[in-house]
Amino acid sequence: MTVETLSTHRVHGGTLRYCRHDSTSTGTPMKFTVWIPDGQGPFPYLVWLSGLTCTEDNFTVKSGVYEHAARHGIAIVAPDTSPRGEGVADDPAYDLGQGAGFYVDATQAPWAPHFMMHSYVTGDLLAAVEGAFPLDGARKGIFGHSMGGHGALTIALKHPELFKSVSAFSPIVSPLNCPWGDKALTAYLGPDRAAWRPYDACALIEDGKGASFDDILIDQGLADSFLENQLKPQLIEAAAAKAGRKVTVRRQDGYDHSYFFISTFIGDHLAFHAQRL
Amino acid sequence: MTVETLSTHRVHGGTLRYCRHDSTSTGTPMKFTVWIPDGQGPFPYLVWLSGLTCTEDNFTVKSGVYEHAARHGIAIVAPDTSPRGEGVADDPAYDLGQGAGFYVDATQAPWAPHFMMHSYVTGDLLAAVEGAFPLDGARKGIFGHSMGGHGALTIALKHPELFKSVSAFSPIVSPLNCPWGDKALTAYLGPDRAAWRPYDACALIEDGKGASFDDILIDQGLADSFLENQLKPQLIEAAAAKAGRKVTVRRQDGYDHSYFFISTFIGDHLAFHAQRL
Repeated sequence: MTVETLSTHRVHGGTLRYCRHDSTSTGTPMKFTVWIPDGQGPFPYLVWLSGLTCTEDNFTVKSGVYEHAARHGIAIVAPDTSPRGEGVADDPAYDLGQGAGFYVDATQAPWAPHFMMHSYVTGDLLAAVEGAFPLDGARKGIFGHSMGGHGALTIALKHPELFKSVSAFSPIVSPLNCPWGDKALTAYLGPDRAAWRPYDACALIEDGKGASFDDILIDQGLADSFLENQLKPQLIEAAAAKAGRKVTVRRQDGYDHSYFFISTFIGDHLAFHAQRL
Repeated sequence: MTVETLSTHRVHGGTLRYCRHDSTSTGTPMKFTVWIPDGQGPFPYLVWLSGLTCTEDNFTVKSGVYEHAARHGIAIVAPDTSPRGEGVADDPAYDLGQGAGFYVDATQAPWAPHFMMHSYVTGDLLAAVEGAFPLDGARKGIFGHSMGGHGALTIALKHPELFKSVSAFSPIVSPLNCPWGDKALTAYLGPDRAAWRPYDACALIEDGKGASFDDILIDQGLADSFLENQLKPQLIEAAAAKAGRKVTVRRQDGYDHSYFFISTFIGDHLAFHAQRL
């Protein structure tokens, strides 16, 4: 589980590294960034999962997260969104294949050999960063955006033993109930929709998973062009209400689906996680 | 001087616009971004000039400036770094031609017809944004990075009647004394180096220009790979000392030439300008 550092930058009184390592889950090299505050640690940390078309770079350069991470003394890990490279299946569409792993373990050809992002994030990634850097594995949270918000919610709800806190920006709350989910999960998991339930945040809440989270914070822009057709935060509010669980959806007037939206409220999310780590 | 809005985003409680307008100086359409706080205004504002290879987008998405701008109630304008498009001269190198206007008014072929960035920034840009948005033209400052730090310093020193404050990140302080300057100013202004002096911050200080600025703030990373060969902040310190002027160069240990460096100290620069606007 050797981690290779590709480049290093000082940012906000800490060190940011662009890294690569070999994942046994995906059977490919995988890239991520990790920002660590100065000092001895071990530091609590957050895993960020990005959305469709993103790599490890988008959040790293656009979110403004490190200023807030420095204030709270929290490290930040941001992986790529899929396996990539020669021999890895792809699709010309932006919402399937490379850059669109949906944080599932694919069971269908041609995706099954490499598109194992659920196992990658919960296994190889955590092992690699906790092995290579001064991180406190007992104090970590997860968050993400859009497809990555879906990833953060489903991974946390399935693995509350791994994460103490979870939040999301404009997440796909129910792949069972939107076109992005229909397309991607049909391709990765096949047409039997019962196999999709472990990758649907609303279904996981209905099934009683992750009940230990005292709250889940979601920010959603009301000028987000994907709100009505894809994101549908009312579905997770309804699932939570029915299950007697707390999910806080904050609807932000005028904000869209971009990193401008994320950068505006990222400080609130760091404070939310800091309280719980 | 019609300003066309290409896209609009909510960011940090204000409105960011990507805009295009026709410049008589460059004879081309020019792009810029402008962020305006909510409220009636008129607002004080800062013009940011970007470095080599940049467009109006780099600072806008990477700097994290709007959080600080919102706190101080200061609007932000960020233009492209050169004219572009069909019929505009270019060079395959990253440090000449499109994306590398050096904020001069070119006198040499093939650049002279369009590469009039000094006139553009001080004329058409300011007129356009002050005409289209609630900005207070009597309270504006200027700052920038690398080539854009050079642009900010030289434009402010030549036009203290336009700007009340000036700062820079890792600026080219003396194009007369570095390879980037040799190459670009030879191309744009010709081999007579006397013609370069109005575009050299150290020479402008030697010539007594812009003495009304009480201080000029410069941040420079010590891990910047361009520090020794291109940037040479000691030259502006020496020029200021000789002239009895104040220029504050803060050398930041470990920081490089990237937007990670800029994002770390952008809040200090906003505070510096806010005190003076």
